[in-house]
Amino acid sequence: MSKNIKVNAAILIIGNEILSGRTQDTNTSTLANWLNSLGVKVGEVRVVPDEEKIIIDTLNLLRKTYNYVFTTGGIGPTHDDITAQSVAKVFNKKYEIHKQAFKILESYYKPGEFNEGRQKMVWMPEDAELILNPTSGAPGFSIDNVFCLPGVPSILKSMLGGLKNKIVGGEPILSQTISLKTVESEIANSLTKVQEQNKDVEIGSYPFFHAGKLGVSIVIRSENQSKIDECNSQILKFVSEKKIEVVDR
Amino acid sequence: MSKNIKVNAAILIIGNEILSGRTQDTNTSTLANWLNSLGVKVGEVRVVPDEEKIIIDTLNLLRKTYNYVFTTGGIGPTHDDITAQSVAKVFNKKYEIHKQAFKILESYYKPGEFNEGRQKMVWMPEDAELILNPTSGAPGFSIDNVFCLPGVPSILKSMLGGLKNKIVGGEPILSQTISLKTVESEIANSLTKVQEQNKDVEIGSYPFFHAGKLGVSIVIRSENQSKIDECNSQILKFVSEKKIEVVDR
Repeated sequence: MSKNIKVNAAILIIGNEILSGRTQDTNTSTLANWLNSLGVKVGEVRVVPDEEKIIIDTLNLLRKTYNYVFTTGGIGPTHDDITAQSVAKVFNKKYEIHKQAFKILESYYKPGEFNEGRQKMVWMPEDAELILNPTSGAPGFSIDNVFCLPGVPSILKSMLGGLKNKIVGGEPILSQTISLKTVESEIANSLTKVQEQNKDVEIGSYPFFHAGKLGVSIVIRSENQSKIDECNSQILKFVSEKKIEVVDR
Repeated sequence: MSKNIKVNAAILIIGNEILSGRTQDTNTSTLANWLNSLGVKVGEVRVVPDEEKIIIDTLNLLRKTYNYVFTTGGIGPTHDDITAQSVAKVFNKKYEIHKQAFKILESYYKPGEFNEGRQKMVWMPEDAELILNPTSGAPGFSIDNVFCLPGVPSILKSMLGGLKNKIVGGEPILSQTISLKTVESEIANSLTKVQEQNKDVEIGSYPFFHAGKLGVSIVIRSENQSKIDECNSQILKFVSEKKIEVVDR
């Protein structure tokens, strides 16, 4: 394995709407791509319902297993938003009004509009650090290695910029994709050999049907560009021998 | 809680490409919607990498916790497709050529095309039952309460029809959505009261930004239509009192 320090993370998607199929989660790929660019590899994703005990148990396990945990969902003003109170219990902290968050929302809303429902959004675990929200005011928060973000994808995306400096990653994970006009079974054996000769590089094979084209994308991932280059040339060698066409995708 | 028999399932998404953010998973919502229609509630989703030990450990836990487990991904012909061999180890079964699957693929391909790479796809746990694949030949399989499907969304979808009779669900989970031209904080307290008075109904609140409209969808879910109707009228009552507009979405 590579000698670079590995930094990993888990993503915990909180929300009945994902489990019921009503809502298509897109936050996983947003977070995973962003984390990759910071040199953090996502090791696991879990989707759990809006149930306190399950959230607490899962979070306790993930925060001890991974360097970072990112939660999405459950930090809004309604009864089914129970992430903040669950996180307070995980860390054995008081669940209380966060003064800075209160000030932010008090000035964000017009006078008289910062009602009881909205005030629920400033209740957080004691000592939580805010994650600022440039889109809709209400901040997320972090405590220890757990970062709590909202479920609405556009708001979540807008908050990542302000979070970047809080994440210390390892070597960025580099990747290269080779797309071929072939089917997986034509290249499976050759690709296995390349993987066996390059055990510390992750080689994935993904069939695609795209814009009328049928093919396979081979994705090579590593922290080390020269190892990627070596795999790339081994793959292009058998591709050329088999007279397989390389395509854009 | 309702006295209906509850049937639940877990979904296990197997694939580095989801964890890296390269591929956006859509199979979760496909499976969840389909399972809901059969009266099976999805309790949990996990995404794990293409690593045998993790797949085995996770599957062992999920199959004992849920009535059904559905896996997606990892049943193709390449080196990173290790679902079948992992499932064989989970059930302490031989990993061997499935005769019926062999015949299916032998006749699916032109003479001479059923090569070694493709033959990998008929290696399955001993005694596996096939899940037929009307799109691309290679079948999935089930063993005990674990159902193994491919990762390519269009192929997965095409296989669900043939699987329906193998799943015994409970009462179908019904749902009703009320979309409002409001923000969550305006209705949070009233909605909390409705939830407290209807503890065995699941009420979710989801802000939306769609086609220039900003609003909140309230989703009521239960196996019991009359309970949904009761919640619905309680919600419409406070909506009318607050002069909030109901909108189509």
